[in-house]
Amino acid sequence: MRDFLAPDLLRRRHVVGVVQRVYESFGFTPLETPTIENLSTLLGKYGPEGDQLLYRLLHRRERLARALEKPSPGELDLADEGLRYDLTVPLARVVANYRDLPAFYKRYQIQPVWRADRPAKGRFREFYQCDVDITGTRSPVADAEVCGAVAKVLVELGFADFTIHLNHRELLRALVLEAGIAPESEGTALIALDKLDKIGVDGVRNELVQRGLSESSIHALLAGLEAARGATYLTERASREGAEGPAPARALLELLELTSAGPAAGHIKFDPSLARGLSYYTGPIFEITVADLAGSLGGGGRYDNLIGMFLNKPVPAVGFSLGLERILLVMEERGMFPALHAGPQVLLCRFPDVSAREALRVASELRAGGLRVEVFADTPALGKQLQYAANIGAGFAAILGAKELAEGGVALKNLTSGEQLSVPIGQVAAVVRAAPAG
Amino acid sequence: MRDFLAPDLLRRRHVVGVVQRVYESFGFTPLETPTIENLSTLLGKYGPEGDQLLYRLLHRRERLARALEKPSPGELDLADEGLRYDLTVPLARVVANYRDLPAFYKRYQIQPVWRADRPAKGRFREFYQCDVDITGTRSPVADAEVCGAVAKVLVELGFADFTIHLNHRELLRALVLEAGIAPESEGTALIALDKLDKIGVDGVRNELVQRGLSESSIHALLAGLEAARGATYLTERASREGAEGPAPARALLELLELTSAGPAAGHIKFDPSLARGLSYYTGPIFEITVADLAGSLGGGGRYDNLIGMFLNKPVPAVGFSLGLERILLVMEERGMFPALHAGPQVLLCRFPDVSAREALRVASELRAGGLRVEVFADTPALGKQLQYAANIGAGFAAILGAKELAEGGVALKNLTSGEQLSVPIGQVAAVVRAAPAG
Repeated sequence: MRDFLAPDLLRRRHVVGVVQRVYESFGFTPLETPTIENLSTLLGKYGPEGDQLLYRLLHRRERLARALEKPSPGELDLADEGLRYDLTVPLARVVANYRDLPAFYKRYQIQPVWRADRPAKGRFREFYQCDVDITGTRSPVADAEVCGAVAKVLVELGFADFTIHLNHRELLRALVLEAGIAPESEGTALIALDKLDKIGVDGVRNELVQRGLSESSIHALLAGLEAARGATYLTERASREGAEGPAPARALLELLELTSAGPAAGHIKFDPSLARGLSYYTGPIFEITVADLAGSLGGGGRYDNLIGMFLNKPVPAVGFSLGLERILLVMEERGMFPALHAGPQVLLCRFPDVSAREALRVASELRAGGLRVEVFADTPALGKQLQYAANIGAGFAAILGAKELAEGGVALKNLTSGEQLSVPIGQVAAVVRAAPAG
Repeated sequence: MRDFLAPDLLRRRHVVGVVQRVYESFGFTPLETPTIENLSTLLGKYGPEGDQLLYRLLHRRERLARALEKPSPGELDLADEGLRYDLTVPLARVVANYRDLPAFYKRYQIQPVWRADRPAKGRFREFYQCDVDITGTRSPVADAEVCGAVAKVLVELGFADFTIHLNHRELLRALVLEAGIAPESEGTALIALDKLDKIGVDGVRNELVQRGLSESSIHALLAGLEAARGATYLTERASREGAEGPAPARALLELLELTSAGPAAGHIKFDPSLARGLSYYTGPIFEITVADLAGSLGGGGRYDNLIGMFLNKPVPAVGFSLGLERILLVMEERGMFPALHAGPQVLLCRFPDVSAREALRVASELRAGGLRVEVFADTPALGKQLQYAANIGAGFAAILGAKELAEGGVALKNLTSGEQLSVPIGQVAAVVRAAPAG
């Protein structure tokens, strides 16, 4: 858990502002959902590990007393609400609850989520996700649009070198089955595969052995993955896919074609070992990486069954989520931020012959001119006031003395150059704005 | 707990944008603190009622198991973290933790807080506060600046008729003592007084009787309050205040003088019955009301001892908090919002002779021109696509046909006027922006 002071917040706002603008340019509209959700909404959507990482809110008063009277109360007796764990499940709940949403609801959502996880570099217990999702259509145009939107965000933030890894759940499933692995072990195999970039081929092999898969099927799976890296693999496989049943290779080729005319062009590539942990994905899956960050900047995919869990009818959906903290981490390390300012531009100082009321009146006037102005509350020696102006990074000090003020002017000191001028109050804003970084 | 769809969010962002801009113009810099705080930070700061309304996070795994092994576990065994209850206590923790903050730290903070309270009109369990505080100085200039900042916010939002009620904790204390009420009953008396505008004089009298105060002291207290409403009361009382000890009447007169040159002028008035529930206030206290809202739009005051609870040295502070939901409620009822738009300006439709890839390419071009563009994913009959554009409130439909597109143009239909023109792609943005509400 972290406090964000002004410099941090300005960087966060800079990124969030770009994300908002780009997502809106793609026709997404904003949504925010409550921090607290019912556990009945959250549980079972993220797998057993996710359930463990949920923050749960302790019952109060009578409900707590009743729960503690039970012989051996458990988590479900003590809490029935928890903190938002991601932005996808709340979206599914919203789509199920609000029947007058557009048929193809395109929403973006930028909010914190909470996971009771061990913190690590770029990983926190409270962190922001920036999600775009399109519900109501199975069209690959929707898949292409969410990839385009996140690609455009990264381009606008100044990233040139990111990669969107692309795979398809049905292709992974086929590779697992073709390796002779039983369908009930598919999840196990995918969890191990998902760690390929962290633990390498040998690590994955060991994990699969430990999880009880046969040597021959493990060998076949890894060989199948290796073969899938061939340049013509998707085309050849697509040509063998029939008109009936899933055709993931064809779907991936179509998506690669669709994204080739937008911001993801040149960044997106098929990666047969991309697995994505969450079990609710059903179609294409995505993950964005940059060379200098372990882990990803974000990910997503198609999930055509999740919303149906909250409704009686299936609602297809596809989405992409960017991790704000990961993006900030890389931008910080690479020095990608422009100069950002929020503190006062002018500290209003005064000699004791000017009343505080008069200083506040001048402050109102300068603020009406659009300046950010702080009033020094007391009247110690002027040097002390000017020192404070420098400490807080004000570019200017406006010094009020009775005589000058009677003529409608202030002494305006540029704290960078040291230059001091007598300036009519009405012209202070113009002088400050004309200065570099004013 | 509420979901905020796009129209709600736009109104919230409008207000938050004004609050941010005005607070920054007063020289405040932003702060955000984590949702989750240690209970040791939160407990005991808001009084017993506040402690009851804290959301607490249930321990997990081993810690939960250990807690449940105790003979009769209580709230403090089951949780040691809770959700942010207000923005003042987190500020106090921040000022204590970060020793390199400016000596006169002026921060604003706009974040949600959580209270496990019964919801009512304009009162929610998750709600946003917009706080400004100045720490490190006892100067009344700081008190005047926080009043000026919130007054300016309301003026900029379009409020003309608000009142900032002003009182002083030491004046209340003196009135209680002068009525012959024992110092240990002061808190009880203030809690009852705080309800004056809700339950009236008779209600307060009844409550004080029930709480065991004597008839004579209750009579004296209410008579003292009545006398304090006299026009010359503060001036007369101030003339009797000595050089030693608290001089609340003088302090209030000074604050009224200081605010008379800024945005609070004409809005601020002394209100001897204003009590403010929280026990941590030590000096002037404030509350903002408008005629058509029961309860307040916000409140605040000086609290010179709270931050010291986290440090070994006293740090004076003063602050003001605006309630976002209250402001939204009144602005909504009064119709004070400007027109706000975030949805797509253009829906890109196409005939089946145009490929999806081509539509996405055109969308990229229009977005590069600054437009918010949604691409209709499939190619049903054009009428159906146009109907959808109207449904989602897009002002225009750009219709792609193979022949026109080969010449670099689209059919641009204004969905308000019904007019349809053939427009080169590069000029679509200009045409859309030239339309009313485009």
